[in-house]
Amino acid sequence: MKNNSYLKGQTALLLVDPYNDFLSEGGKLWPLVEGIAKEVGLLDNLRAITAAARKAGIRIFIVPHHRWEPGDYESWAHPSPDQVAVGRKQVFAKGMWGGDWHPDFVPQAGDIIIKEHWAQNGFAGTDLDFQLKQHGVDKVIMTGMLANTCIEATGRYAMELGYHVTLVKDATAAFSADRMHAAHALNGPNFAHAILTTAELVALLPIE
Amino acid sequence: MKNNSYLKGQTALLLVDPYNDFLSEGGKLWPLVEGIAKEVGLLDNLRAITAAARKAGIRIFIVPHHRWEPGDYESWAHPSPDQVAVGRKQVFAKGMWGGDWHPDFVPQAGDIIIKEHWAQNGFAGTDLDFQLKQHGVDKVIMTGMLANTCIEATGRYAMELGYHVTLVKDATAAFSADRMHAAHALNGPNFAHAILTTAELVALLPIE
Amino acid sequence: MKNNSYLKGQTALLLVDPYNDFLSEGGKLWPLVEGIAKEVGLLDNLRAITAAARKAGIRIFIVPHHRWEPGDYESWAHPSPDQVAVGRKQVFAKGMWGGDWHPDFVPQAGDIIIKEHWAQNGFAGTDLDFQLKQHGVDKVIMTGMLANTCIEATGRYAMELGYHVTLVKDATAAFSADRMHAAHALNGPNFAHAILTTAELVALLPIE
Amino acid sequence: MKNNSYLKGQTALLLVDPYNDFLSEGGKLWPLVEGIAKEVGLLDNLRAITAAARKAGIRIFIVPHHRWEPGDYESWAHPSPDQVAVGRKQVFAKGMWGGDWHPDFVPQAGDIIIKEHWAQNGFAGTDLDFQLKQHGVDKVIMTGMLANTCIEATGRYAMELGYHVTLVKDATAAFSADRMHAAHALNGPNFAHAILTTAELVALLPIE
Repeated sequence: MKNNSYLKGQTALLLVDPYNDFLSEGGKLWPLVEGIAKEVGLLDNLRAITAAARKAGIRIFIVPHHRWEPGDYESWAHPSPDQVAVGRKQVFAKGMWGGDWHPDFVPQAGDIIIKEHWAQNGFAGTDLDFQLKQHGVDKVIMTGMLANTCIEATGRYAMELGYHVTLVKDATAAFSADRMHAAHALNGPNFAHAILTTAELVALLPIE
Repeated sequence: MKNNSYLKGQTALLLVDPYNDFLSEGGKLWPLVEGIAKEVGLLDNLRAITAAARKAGIRIFIVPHHRWEPGDYESWAHPSPDQVAVGRKQVFAKGMWGGDWHPDFVPQAGDIIIKEHWAQNGFAGTDLDFQLKQHGVDKVIMTGMLANTCIEATGRYAMELGYHVTLVKDATAAFSADRMHAAHALNGPNFAHAILTTAELVALLPIE
Repeated sequence: MKNNSYLKGQTALLLVDPYNDFLSEGGKLWPLVEGIAKEVGLLDNLRAITAAARKAGIRIFIVPHHRWEPGDYESWAHPSPDQVAVGRKQVFAKGMWGGDWHPDFVPQAGDIIIKEHWAQNGFAGTDLDFQLKQHGVDKVIMTGMLANTCIEATGRYAMELGYHVTLVKDATAAFSADRMHAAHALNGPNFAHAILTTAELVALLPIE
Repeated sequence: MKNNSYLKGQTALLLVDPYNDFLSEGGKLWPLVEGIAKEVGLLDNLRAITAAARKAGIRIFIVPHHRWEPGDYESWAHPSPDQVAVGRKQVFAKGMWGGDWHPDFVPQAGDIIIKEHWAQNGFAGTDLDFQLKQHGVDKVIMTGMLANTCIEATGRYAMELGYHVTLVKDATAAFSADRMHAAHALNGPNFAHAILTTAELVALLPIE
């Protein structure tokens, strides 16, 4: 069945914001996500999915948030609440450890690194749609951070652009359990074509 | 202060999906939203806001969902779950009462009717951004249906495009209280520049 | 070879602005294009290509310009020179013969009618990209009017979006020979993946 | 008059691809543009416009082409003819002199550097529209390279997005005189709101 399979030519694994500030002990946002991350087994699940994707020949697209630099947002008319907060905390700072890749998710040869997004939606102001098209992709699997911000914004818009969208509810995290519930039980069912666990997803990936 | 005011030249009131199927007794989706709609005073609030906006010289942009027609979605690779449901129920059917404007929100001279959106995001595949630009708008006030689907998708994306975004938490509704909570307390604060009640908003509108 | 073929699943024939005002005797713009149109055999070529596409199972997407209505552009900050001219001449008027389809190019069952574009680019403010994605298309064949305005703007942007773009230099026309030359010899070679004649194209289409 | 003036708050000077490979003796593309560049006084005009813009408080947005890196385009389904050529010649190579800014057009404090575009259109897959919105801009002045490729693609699309567009016909160049003619006499008048010389433009800029 076309829509229940993840063929390597047509499927992309999107890995959103795999930065130390989100995923590593000592990261600026880690304390806010640690509870959920450990509960769902986030790091192990991301390792399992990226390994399974590579083995299946499914290409990985890294979808990174803007790395903070001095002067950011200062001349803007309408920075978002999150941009104001990011600027104050200097989250994902360029050239700093917090804005570097978590060591287990450093891009590898063949991965596509998308241009950095300024807010939540990995398509907005980036080449994500273009790169997906140039690689023949029409199905995206959403993984990374955060369930109700970047993952949801990017997944929602992928559907608006015509892609088949899969959420993986234990390969992401959020600041609270009700945000996870909102992402996967309240909003996700309105736009996502599949909402799976890591184990369910990995079982569906092809063996190359 | 630039960001705490709603000047008529730069502000648009977006009214999303003011169809009978959503807002009128007998509408196909009315039974699903009636509880919340009555609790927040939705209809009265929409009447108050549109009246205040017209009085203030703030232009109204109608942002309508696609009206269902026979054959819709049949040749598509990846219709969304909502599109499948809309198709099955023939919601907002073209030429039918359910797909007609609620009588209190029929577009008036000077209102801009945006092209119909296929899914949730009023910008996706439409001329909404273009029309806002042609009218000098950089602030949007989100009203209409539903809080966690079209309103949230359109508001999130407005922020991604650089607009100042205001949510009005009692000028919308949803299928359940937790969806309202998700829209206004969990997700909205990450992207919206203001989250107001109708009374708070109307008090801020200019008197022409 | 993937890029030298036009398989039915992945190819779309875009037919831009097939209105009486452009293509029929008595149309408002026909006198301006008649010279080139007759020289290249435009009408016969459009008939040949649409017939061949239907026979090959290649889907036709109608990409129509906005139909003029009273009040158009009046509240806009920056209407384009062409929009000002269109408004003055009431070209492609809604509900009038000039804004109706040329009788040989009336949409047929299975054709997709894209939302009307306001200016030249059939993707701008429309669902063209979305509909192409939902139908699995990654190659577009550009036909219709005008070579150096809507065809060029749409073809250029199709390339920017990641599509394979084919121009058909005798299935379009322009107001002058130097505009045809600019479209096909000066600008086209920078963005189009193929620039063919109708005969060359038809020979490459699959036989279903 | 709103549309005949270039107020500092609403106007942006776009400077496209000010790389050594385009503008400096020894650049890979300089031999192809040298004839026209010298004929129109390109370098002097770009120096005059950027100086006048800075003096007038008009913000400069640098709109740079993708800098070539090894591996570029290799996994793509449909690289454009120009991308194939750029890849073969390694034009605008990252970290090399050719891909560095011409010394007279190095970005200065307050300039906005837009994300690199992959093809011709500075809006496609970049944050140009977003950055213009965040800075309140609704008028763009197009300068840089090339008249019939990046300048035209970006200018055409700026109009599609609702911006007021000014071409400066001696602050750009092309590979041939007929390409300049196509850009400014054949295609520009259909989409640009103003087509000026450098002298005419500078005379219209405000004195801060």
